[in-house]
Amino acid sequence: MIMLDDILRIIEPLDREAMAAAERRQRQLTKPPGSLGRLEELSILLAGMQGDERPRAYRKQLILAAGDHGVASSGVSSYPQEVTAQMVQNFLEGGAAVNVFAQRAGVELTIVDAGVAVPVGPSDSLVSVRLGFGTENIAEGPAMSLEQAEAALDAGAKIARAAAAYDDVIGIGEMGIGNTTSAAAIVSVLCGRPPEAVTGRGASRSDEQLASKIAVVTRAIDVNQPDPTDGVDVLRTLGGFEIGVLAGVVLGAASRRTPVVLDGFITAAAALIAQAIVPLSRDYLIAGHRSAERGHGVALEHLGLKPLLELDMRLGEGTGAVLAMGIVDAAAASLNEMATFAEAGVSDSESSHNGGQVQ
Amino acid sequence: MIMLDDILRIIEPLDREAMAAAERRQRQLTKPPGSLGRLEELSILLAGMQGDERPRAYRKQLILAAGDHGVASSGVSSYPQEVTAQMVQNFLEGGAAVNVFAQRAGVELTIVDAGVAVPVGPSDSLVSVRLGFGTENIAEGPAMSLEQAEAALDAGAKIARAAAAYDDVIGIGEMGIGNTTSAAAIVSVLCGRPPEAVTGRGASRSDEQLASKIAVVTRAIDVNQPDPTDGVDVLRTLGGFEIGVLAGVVLGAASRRTPVVLDGFITAAAALIAQAIVPLSRDYLIAGHRSAERGHGVALEHLGLKPLLELDMRLGEGTGAVLAMGIVDAAAASLNEMATFAEAGVSDSESSHNGGQVQ
Repeated sequence: MIMLDDILRIIEPLDREAMAAAERRQRQLTKPPGSLGRLEELSILLAGMQGDERPRAYRKQLILAAGDHGVASSGVSSYPQEVTAQMVQNFLEGGAAVNVFAQRAGVELTIVDAGVAVPVGPSDSLVSVRLGFGTENIAEGPAMSLEQAEAALDAGAKIARAAAAYDDVIGIGEMGIGNTTSAAAIVSVLCGRPPEAVTGRGASRSDEQLASKIAVVTRAIDVNQPDPTDGVDVLRTLGGFEIGVLAGVVLGAASRRTPVVLDGFITAAAALIAQAIVPLSRDYLIAGHRSAERGHGVALEHLGLKPLLELDMRLGEGTGAVLAMGIVDAAAASLNEMATFAEAGVSDSESSHNGGQVQ
Repeated sequence: MIMLDDILRIIEPLDREAMAAAERRQRQLTKPPGSLGRLEELSILLAGMQGDERPRAYRKQLILAAGDHGVASSGVSSYPQEVTAQMVQNFLEGGAAVNVFAQRAGVELTIVDAGVAVPVGPSDSLVSVRLGFGTENIAEGPAMSLEQAEAALDAGAKIARAAAAYDDVIGIGEMGIGNTTSAAAIVSVLCGRPPEAVTGRGASRSDEQLASKIAVVTRAIDVNQPDPTDGVDVLRTLGGFEIGVLAGVVLGAASRRTPVVLDGFITAAAALIAQAIVPLSRDYLIAGHRSAERGHGVALEHLGLKPLLELDMRLGEGTGAVLAMGIVDAAAASLNEMATFAEAGVSDSESSHNGGQVQ
């Protein structure tokens, strides 16, 4: 078992030398300097994460963790709890949006059962790290025990470290009826913002539902009094199993210098927990997109991340992460595969031409 | 030879029936309604373009047209004119950003010599429709003859119609030292905005160069007095050969109900010319991204298009179009490949659950 203390020791800062070398290389590639905009910044960041001036994003994997939430019984979603298991079955059969997007984008998909209420499968395609039959209702007490919280983080870290032995970039996604409620409570506590500033509709639809959901988030924080300086305590009190596993994935990937592409609001909550446990883990994050969910912007700002895409998506599953991985792939490939001015025999403006004037 | 009049007759409006069917289908797919945001809108638009409630974006091609501009002798770029030919050679050898991005994204690349000053090749990978050895200097007179303008449009339409027999979606890109000057003049005339509102730095770098460039654009419009109601006249007077070919690609693709993904500022200028010739052609356009080039936003607004990506890119070549094609692919695949609630046995909130309240 990898202990959190071990991970704390092996997560290293970005490699500044590799970043400086990548920046120099970007200036030698056959294009006006800076003309690839955010892709150049991203490529340099990837170099710093991977410790290599020629970063790679060829092999990509999405880790999608699913879990149920006791708080679903407080009526925070328009969908019944059994939809979590039904959607996991849909993921295994390839019918969900994330399956379709991942297949089109060449991203491998790993589905993790972190604690769905009704076990799905068995299936060769499902990684089972079940921590229970769904969390307890956070409006009434802690989501899980300390042992469950630590086991969730550990399971995620193990999955990520195994994936990082093969994959260049890892994305994260989630499924769990009720998990925007859990995420809103986590973001509220870790970003120090009131529940109404970070609680959105999720998959619910009416104004009444939103008001109830804010009340549930407020109650969950009041009842549990999580310690905002202790990421494990926030996870233990506010859940959920899949969020804990994904926080572990962030830590495990960071410990192997592997970039993690975030999806929407719930994955940002997982990243905030990881950051609270090991602040340096934040340096290995890429914000795939900004979702339409209220509070996602707050979480990304707290993480200091600017999203690559803004397409008003709010599905989760990792759909936004998968789309963004195509951009990450291109950014890495620019450093890895483009010709330099010298290699291509193209005149560089600086070396051959001193900026003419109108005659 | 396809005459423009013929194209005018065969470009049809969007298929509203297919769009309505696609919208119905989106609501039956296993996700909360609307949760794929702009991808759902895009998928419905693709259905309308292709006339099929299950649109396809599997086979993708980028048509990259290159041409030289006489106005380059007015010192509007930091790069010497020979860079156009050098970059075409770089495209043929696979070393440019667009090669790398297209290869990563599974987009086929067609390079078209529309009139580079120094002919490149021969190469099996190069389509030659050379309309001259670069345009005339638009600061002194028309870029080309009426015959050249018509031939450029015709060549582009032919290339697109041939591609559309095989490809599901076509992207457009360009290369030509000096072509942001030509594009700024076109956008100024067709959007009715002053040169200073639409002229940006392009690949130039100093404030002095920008001021000179605005003066050149102003002079080009004064000298030529293009008719803003006549797209062919705007092309004839302000150029360039590659812009004419790409305007023809838009018309040819639209005449085959094939979506066209735009790249940056210069491709938007080409789309404006196509729109001025056949207004309905605009309905077949998708704005791949908004570039950092001043004036691109003006052109997209005039076309009524909202870009998919905003990544501060300003390279051209079709790089933004290629990145956006991954999003287009995913949007089409959502309609084509996702399971419905009924197929997957997933509970739909509307049919099984009436939105619970907090108990």
